[in-house]
Amino acid sequence: MSKKYQVVGIGNAMVDVLSQCQDGFLDENGIGKGIMQLIDMDRAVDLYSRVGPSKEISGGSAANSIAAAAQLGGRVAYVGKVMDDQLGEIFAHDLRAQGADYETTLGQGDGGAQTGRCIVLVTPDGERSLNTYLGWSEFLGPDDIDEAMMANSEWIFLEGYRFDGPDSHAAFAKAVAATKGAGGKVSITLSDPFCIERHRDAFGEMLRNDVDLLFANRAEMMSMYETDDFEQALASAAAQVETVACTDGENGAYILAAGNRWHVPAVPTEVVDATGAGDLFAGAFLWGLTNGYDLETCGKMACVAASEVISHIGARPEADLKSLFKQHGLL
Amino acid sequence: MSKKYQVVGIGNAMVDVLSQCQDGFLDENGIGKGIMQLIDMDRAVDLYSRVGPSKEISGGSAANSIAAAAQLGGRVAYVGKVMDDQLGEIFAHDLRAQGADYETTLGQGDGGAQTGRCIVLVTPDGERSLNTYLGWSEFLGPDDIDEAMMANSEWIFLEGYRFDGPDSHAAFAKAVAATKGAGGKVSITLSDPFCIERHRDAFGEMLRNDVDLLFANRAEMMSMYETDDFEQALASAAAQVETVACTDGENGAYILAAGNRWHVPAVPTEVVDATGAGDLFAGAFLWGLTNGYDLETCGKMACVAASEVISHIGARPEADLKSLFKQHGLL
Repeated sequence: MSKKYQVVGIGNAMVDVLSQCQDGFLDENGIGKGIMQLIDMDRAVDLYSRVGPSKEISGGSAANSIAAAAQLGGRVAYVGKVMDDQLGEIFAHDLRAQGADYETTLGQGDGGAQTGRCIVLVTPDGERSLNTYLGWSEFLGPDDIDEAMMANSEWIFLEGYRFDGPDSHAAFAKAVAATKGAGGKVSITLSDPFCIERHRDAFGEMLRNDVDLLFANRAEMMSMYETDDFEQALASAAAQVETVACTDGENGAYILAAGNRWHVPAVPTEVVDATGAGDLFAGAFLWGLTNGYDLETCGKMACVAASEVISHIGARPEADLKSLFKQHGLL
Repeated sequence: MSKKYQVVGIGNAMVDVLSQCQDGFLDENGIGKGIMQLIDMDRAVDLYSRVGPSKEISGGSAANSIAAAAQLGGRVAYVGKVMDDQLGEIFAHDLRAQGADYETTLGQGDGGAQTGRCIVLVTPDGERSLNTYLGWSEFLGPDDIDEAMMANSEWIFLEGYRFDGPDSHAAFAKAVAATKGAGGKVSITLSDPFCIERHRDAFGEMLRNDVDLLFANRAEMMSMYETDDFEQALASAAAQVETVACTDGENGAYILAAGNRWHVPAVPTEVVDATGAGDLFAGAFLWGLTNGYDLETCGKMACVAASEVISHIGARPEADLKSLFKQHGLL
């Protein structure tokens, strides 16, 4: 009998505040282009006062992946913490409306921590620079992990960003144990090269011992294995992890498993906002995998989904992904 | 010496919750297509639980107009009430980031009224159906009107929707008196045919006595003058008000003043989301007028601005309106 869930994602629950800006704005405000920087509430307030008119759209890396899998009809759930405030309500609504289960208890408070938000600055080239106030999402710990839910899922999907939290390593360990103990599998995304630098040992230990499927992009892969040689990084990853799915921007993606390697070309599109490209890649890949498609087809689906999300503002899918897969002959 | 402001807008301060749906969803949920319905908090919560993933973008009819005039470089301000909550913060930020003054005191409360929101359902034809929870914006009253600000503005711009509030008539009367007393002029938008039905006498009195410039669309114009004959409605309006600017969808707009009449064709575009078409029409028209352009040119600018906002999701301008005006030979 199949498990209740195909994928349960665990990550930082976020609402994105999306604003377009020129490259000069990044320089003036000390924002590293294309990466994720953690900011505190004071910096969030100050930066928000400087950015132009914005749009608020639910985000969070693993949540975006789960939303994509849900839109495809996957049996999926998400674990991540928001407060009982207006942004938290938006986050919860959007996940559930997409068809994902989301039962993490809403944080109650007196105005201290708020729901996490990410000020996403999109430059004219479509690149996004992330400024993340973790807020309540920072405090995800073992108590938030429902072992029965993990045991009831074929895969769990862990967001690397989540290593930036005091109790997150313990939470991940609990989730991994519950999943593996019930015969499930573990996937993870490395999320960001600087996040890897902050937590290289923890990532490394997990890759060696627990991870069955690794998602990363080129920069993250080279950061993880501390090399400038992309091929060497891929080989190192493939030696540690059963399946490696590595994106490489406009070059598409590389899938490595059991000594095989597939190159999947990117689907050309005009990049409006790169936010969510890797997230939708992972979400679609996991949907394909848990629905019995071969790895190369999973990679193709993942590239189609990534191209959809970068064609518009926001990191959640807007077009019907199944229809796109059909158009590309994948269904 | 010129006044501090060219235009001060007064209206319902709102954050839009934009969601796409099929026509059947409107029928199933008793939602009138293309119109604005007022809903209470219970209905807002229930309806929100039924709609799909959404985007939150600052809205409010007159606020959208003021945002457009601000983006054009106009000296503008806005008056409308939000709470000191996350949606209120978003609303205030987006207006100020666009360059408008916004000093209305934030409402403080214990969780009763919230910042107003409008659940905007966009059907595949691009038509929008508005479900408005007024929230704190409902309580705009005379105390919120700063007479010095009104006296310091060349024009005020009143949102017809605002008639749906217990103290709004008194607030409008105070604003009109302060404006007129300092030699300023009064413009109003009729907003919605059913809003007109609810407040026809109040609208009529204001049109006869106070209004110098009337904005409306075809349906509102015929509702106001209780006729099925559009030409007759236009003639009735022109007999009461110095300048009439009436939009007529894909037929463009009609400008009537001092016995003259201009037809301005619409700017063809793919309608993604009609939300804000009339708002940007009014905002751009007022910017043109207060910058010395003739009425026909104001109408053309207004149609360009309207075409911009219906080409994307959300009721605030995204492209640079001045650049568009230049492309159309208007600047």
